[in-house]
Amino acid sequence: MLILNLSMKAILVVIDGLGDRPIRKFGDKTPLEAAFTPNLDELASRGICGIMDTVAPGITPGSDTAHLSLFGLDPHKHYHGRGPIEACGAGLKLEHGDIAFRANAGTVDENLIIKDRRAGRIESTKDLCKVIDGMEIDGVKVILKPSSWYRAVLVLRGKGLSDKVSPNDIKKLGVPVQKVKPLDNSQEAKRTAEVLNKLTKISYEKWRDLDINKKRIKEGKLPANIILFRGAGTYVPVPTIEERYHMKSACIAGGGLYKGIGAFLGMNVINVPGATGKYDSDFMAKTKKAMEIIGDYDLVFVHMKATDSAGEDGNPELKREMIEKMDAAIGKLLGFDGLLVVTADHTTPCELKKHSYEPVPLVMSGPGIRTDSVKAFGERSCSSGGLHRIRGLDLLPIIANHMGFSKLYGA
Amino acid sequence: MLILNLSMKAILVVIDGLGDRPIRKFGDKTPLEAAFTPNLDELASRGICGIMDTVAPGITPGSDTAHLSLFGLDPHKHYHGRGPIEACGAGLKLEHGDIAFRANAGTVDENLIIKDRRAGRIESTKDLCKVIDGMEIDGVKVILKPSSWYRAVLVLRGKGLSDKVSPNDIKKLGVPVQKVKPLDNSQEAKRTAEVLNKLTKISYEKWRDLDINKKRIKEGKLPANIILFRGAGTYVPVPTIEERYHMKSACIAGGGLYKGIGAFLGMNVINVPGATGKYDSDFMAKTKKAMEIIGDYDLVFVHMKATDSAGEDGNPELKREMIEKMDAAIGKLLGFDGLLVVTADHTTPCELKKHSYEPVPLVMSGPGIRTDSVKAFGERSCSSGGLHRIRGLDLLPIIANHMGFSKLYGA
Repeated sequence: MLILNLSMKAILVVIDGLGDRPIRKFGDKTPLEAAFTPNLDELASRGICGIMDTVAPGITPGSDTAHLSLFGLDPHKHYHGRGPIEACGAGLKLEHGDIAFRANAGTVDENLIIKDRRAGRIESTKDLCKVIDGMEIDGVKVILKPSSWYRAVLVLRGKGLSDKVSPNDIKKLGVPVQKVKPLDNSQEAKRTAEVLNKLTKISYEKWRDLDINKKRIKEGKLPANIILFRGAGTYVPVPTIEERYHMKSACIAGGGLYKGIGAFLGMNVINVPGATGKYDSDFMAKTKKAMEIIGDYDLVFVHMKATDSAGEDGNPELKREMIEKMDAAIGKLLGFDGLLVVTADHTTPCELKKHSYEPVPLVMSGPGIRTDSVKAFGERSCSSGGLHRIRGLDLLPIIANHMGFSKLYGA
Repeated sequence: MLILNLSMKAILVVIDGLGDRPIRKFGDKTPLEAAFTPNLDELASRGICGIMDTVAPGITPGSDTAHLSLFGLDPHKHYHGRGPIEACGAGLKLEHGDIAFRANAGTVDENLIIKDRRAGRIESTKDLCKVIDGMEIDGVKVILKPSSWYRAVLVLRGKGLSDKVSPNDIKKLGVPVQKVKPLDNSQEAKRTAEVLNKLTKISYEKWRDLDINKKRIKEGKLPANIILFRGAGTYVPVPTIEERYHMKSACIAGGGLYKGIGAFLGMNVINVPGATGKYDSDFMAKTKKAMEIIGDYDLVFVHMKATDSAGEDGNPELKREMIEKMDAAIGKLLGFDGLLVVTADHTTPCELKKHSYEPVPLVMSGPGIRTDSVKAFGERSCSSGGLHRIRGLDLLPIIANHMGFSKLYGA
């Protein structure tokens, strides 16, 4: 086993849902092609470009499966649902076999009909979680930890559990809280569904009359009187980036899922004030922080979310504006003397308002890079670059190898 | 499980054996590059191009394995011989485990030496099949159904059979009808070979003195007095296109194998008058029919064969002529408002007179396609297109995804 000793640092910027399709009112340019991006174009000029299918050609990746691929883990092998990744992002230390869910505090009427899936966007679930966290139902430990705003993370810990259960929340209003059903014929799924149905009932009984809800009702706000959960997944630990490449890594992200990806993969998750994961996120604060901490790490992963949201909102002007703000923030990285990589996790065409399958653009710039003739960072310009068309699973091996953290294969 | 709801229709045209190598007398252009193809070039200008290894780089695909790949089924897993696909093309309803063969009515002398493999191109095998179809040999049911001209489909149905048997026809004249041999040491192969050897003998005994043969001999024609078979394969059902993508599909083809591919994959096989699978085939009738029926389907597959035949005949001028006729027919599709895809199943270089391994050109055109700068449809021009170099197995996932029939992978 040979560890190369000429190591280089790297910053990887993932712009969420960056890819798009031609937009008529932009003269058939994509938002990225239409945006003013002097810094990304400078990177394209300095570096080598390409396009990338983050999972595989013709596959529409979720944000979770896409990021697993980008960090070198085949999602077909390592993806077991979104819940455990979100739980990692909320700072939970999961145990192998834990069943994790994304949870909301919601509002139901006395017939358990859902009135609001976010309990009037309640600011915190801390007081709600406290009365449930740690309890046991049928010998199963229930862990419930607050996340941002109305969000929480639910974990079931115990023997004989399964993630093959339906959610009690199908993202619809005016319908009853769903009865959880087993999704296969196993005893484990049956048992897990029973525990979850009891938990749903308990949350209503315990939360309904809490002081916090009495106060909210008095103030004309919606009470947070029901737990809603979805995204069931089993926590199965994966080999961390450090275990695979002996490199220290950090994650700078606003959204819970992306912090979760970082924690799930053993990165040090750095909280940056102003990094909200929303349109108002301070992209510049993120890239500044990356430059500040790169001395302490080998690899810093910077995630920017707002482009994906603009795509899902079907707003190309907003997407272009977000790209231009991100470009300005990426300008802070142009002085970095290591390997700088900018790419996306998937395409989110404004015309579809959802993820889609098309490959994403990719640029790598830094010492030793075999440059190409691409001068602009765009879906189509990158397509003629020297990296050609690669897969997401190829990215981290290429980055780690260029950094000097890979072993010789053979002799 | 999310089924996207913004669906689009698609027409997929496969030009058989279209790929070729540079031809000296065409100024080192391929037949496709040398042909006048204003419609294909228009499609290339409107769309995104690339090249495709239908099975894998360096692999020469058969028409059967190539088409399985193009329709998203890995032939290494799903290909069990040509016989069952041909049988599907002849309209047979096969059962799991049936052993199917391509069969001909042939002519032998009294020493069972083959004089003609097609019995003087006899117009029909209907009367011949009738006297054998349905009989039992050693408890095995023999199914023999007429196909076009001198062709038929032979199926053995029963327990304890195997497709690991040699053919009785090695495509040679002046040799004895071959004794079928088991190709492995299994009891099943031994038993199947015995049944087939008895069947060969029975066909001679039953056909020799049929009125139809007495009449043929009187007319100076060759009698159809022996069954010849090859292409043994086991029928193992595959997931249909509808099962995989929830789309309704139709197949327009002349050749039996390509109708077979359609039927095998659960497409509705549409017979078009004039679609012969030969040089005289009415390509225009096929594309007209595709436009007529597309309203009733999500995906229409149009197959055109004559380019492959011209390659196998080593005739570049004829291949170019066929390409120009097909281009004119494809002109009928330019007004189609869905996704139009034109490609090939493999390369058939005129200089080799057989299939070869080189990737084939591919163009996709339609709403939402991220276009490239390719303006001509040819092996080398498509090579610089935005699709780069993909594999046959990627094609249907890309098409189905662009049509809106794919699920999100992950969350």
